[in-house]
Amino acid sequence: MIPFAELKIDALLVSALPNIRYLSGFTGDNALLLVTPESQTLFTDPRFTIQSSEECACTIKIGPRGPMEPYVVEAIRRKKLKRIGFEASRMIFDAHLRLKESLPLGATLKPIGPVIEKLRMIKSKDEIARIRKSVLTNSEAFEKTVKSIRLGVSESSIAAELEFQMRRLGAEKAAFETIVAVGPRSALPHARPGSQAVRVDELLLVDMGSCQNGYMSDMTRTLFCGKPSRRIRNMYGAVLKSQLAAIAAVKAGATAGQVDRKAREVLESEGLGKQFVHSTGHGLGLEIHEPPRIGRRDKTRLEAGMVITIEPGAYIQGFGGIRIEDTVLVTKNGCEILTPTSKELMLL
Amino acid sequence: MIPFAELKIDALLVSALPNIRYLSGFTGDNALLLVTPESQTLFTDPRFTIQSSEECACTIKIGPRGPMEPYVVEAIRRKKLKRIGFEASRMIFDAHLRLKESLPLGATLKPIGPVIEKLRMIKSKDEIARIRKSVLTNSEAFEKTVKSIRLGVSESSIAAELEFQMRRLGAEKAAFETIVAVGPRSALPHARPGSQAVRVDELLLVDMGSCQNGYMSDMTRTLFCGKPSRRIRNMYGAVLKSQLAAIAAVKAGATAGQVDRKAREVLESEGLGKQFVHSTGHGLGLEIHEPPRIGRRDKTRLEAGMVITIEPGAYIQGFGGIRIEDTVLVTKNGCEILTPTSKELMLL
Repeated sequence: MIPFAELKIDALLVSALPNIRYLSGFTGDNALLLVTPESQTLFTDPRFTIQSSEECACTIKIGPRGPMEPYVVEAIRRKKLKRIGFEASRMIFDAHLRLKESLPLGATLKPIGPVIEKLRMIKSKDEIARIRKSVLTNSEAFEKTVKSIRLGVSESSIAAELEFQMRRLGAEKAAFETIVAVGPRSALPHARPGSQAVRVDELLLVDMGSCQNGYMSDMTRTLFCGKPSRRIRNMYGAVLKSQLAAIAAVKAGATAGQVDRKAREVLESEGLGKQFVHSTGHGLGLEIHEPPRIGRRDKTRLEAGMVITIEPGAYIQGFGGIRIEDTVLVTKNGCEILTPTSKELMLL
Repeated sequence: MIPFAELKIDALLVSALPNIRYLSGFTGDNALLLVTPESQTLFTDPRFTIQSSEECACTIKIGPRGPMEPYVVEAIRRKKLKRIGFEASRMIFDAHLRLKESLPLGATLKPIGPVIEKLRMIKSKDEIARIRKSVLTNSEAFEKTVKSIRLGVSESSIAAELEFQMRRLGAEKAAFETIVAVGPRSALPHARPGSQAVRVDELLLVDMGSCQNGYMSDMTRTLFCGKPSRRIRNMYGAVLKSQLAAIAAVKAGATAGQVDRKAREVLESEGLGKQFVHSTGHGLGLEIHEPPRIGRRDKTRLEAGMVITIEPGAYIQGFGGIRIEDTVLVTKNGCEILTPTSKELMLL
């Protein structure tokens, strides 16, 4: 799986926890994983002695809490490893320094790009099944909660209810801080839910994800409370058209940048190009944001088995924002929209 | 506040988000902060244009998404800064490399230790008030939920209820994944709640924290379902004695290591020294784990205004674990236990 020869390394030291989980099964929050073509060794601390032995088939080394680099260096010495790759976009400067300064003579460290993240882009059958489950949980939690939203309820109590419902349905946690934003606050793409209450003639934006069996889902729906004005209906229509155009462009062989462009073209032609302040989507899996980024400059070619979000939006300061987001599975000839929730403008 | 002269730097580039929040007020999840003795400049992306302008009084530079180092380098050039400190234990290797390779001639990067974390150890009045609130929310959520626990209820549904209650009481989220562990699973210090149901004659360990107004709380209580055996009562008594001994040792001037030793001595004398597999506690505030670590080797001298946890435990594989944890405020002559929840062995 890891192209050791091509990377010109004898071993890869994995420090990103989702990558460690992907390779070894370990779900704890403190570990390093040393991978060679023949072996895997997990380094962790005594809090995880029992858990690691239950989760991992590989060799496990338990050191005291604190920096684990000395134990890794010991293993490097014992295994006589020479060229050690490390995850340059994941390893902290200090950890790299600790390693470098204690390496055995003749051993060298080599910065390596996101190789494990690239492996992770294409999901296995089991991973796709977990994501499907997570997506369904998320939509069900949304639909259950939306029914109970009344005027005067605060953003934060809606967020609490959404997260409670997803947990009741089997999620272990929210994939990220649930966004519930009323009125002009919906123009903040990353609003934190607060005491602001649902009011008539206002937008209500909900961006939520579940984490179930380790795998994420991500969905945004924008609702309106009352009878929407023409401006709202037009803006909603434009964002939906943009989202559908981007989804139509998703298929194995298309580039991430091409999909982004489709979403952007529609919003530009609707006069909302400048109001679309983020990229069109992102991969997800063990993390809520994974490669590829569905953005202007991303040249990744989509492949069957990738799971990405498509989520254009338009934001007008002082007025409000509209975003519509689905989780989709890339297939050979197109894509499957995993999110079952309706995209008609929901009215409260 | 930041000892620029002592550190021999003209500016500090802050990359850890909690440190950025502490200094600038920015609560978004993508930023860098360049601090000089005269100025602060926040670099973030267009998703946070509105939010940053609402939260921060400092200069704000919005760049496109992606690495922000080029914009920082531009500012370094413009301000003619020469010696730039960076957070060595927080900055990713790659980010450091990107900076280093594009620095203007004559400018140098200098690795700096956890200076902002050290400032953050002593909490302001406002921070203490927020932590108090978070602790009370957390205890109230626990007490409300415990009343409703019945035989047969799963760990994960208890965790869901605990987190729902804390949110209803004003928390924006759980401070960490709530731990609810039944029976032998309580021996895993970091168990994830699962489908295991509460059973008679079993331990039930709950470790939970709230995050309210950005500030954390942390509490563990161990309950028993049924009539506890002598072994359980003895073990509980030993852990409680250890916790009380450690708390009695907390005061301004004591070292973190001394407090840890007190907890450890009691458990050793009770024959449970080897079963205490973690340190006695940790600081908390904007993060759930902050310096000081209340561990064997930590020589930090406690000071009034620090907020720490005291949480000894004993874990026996196949049998179960007991941990008792409070959040406490260090004062001049001792400490104030912020957590109001009873520490008698609770029976279900």
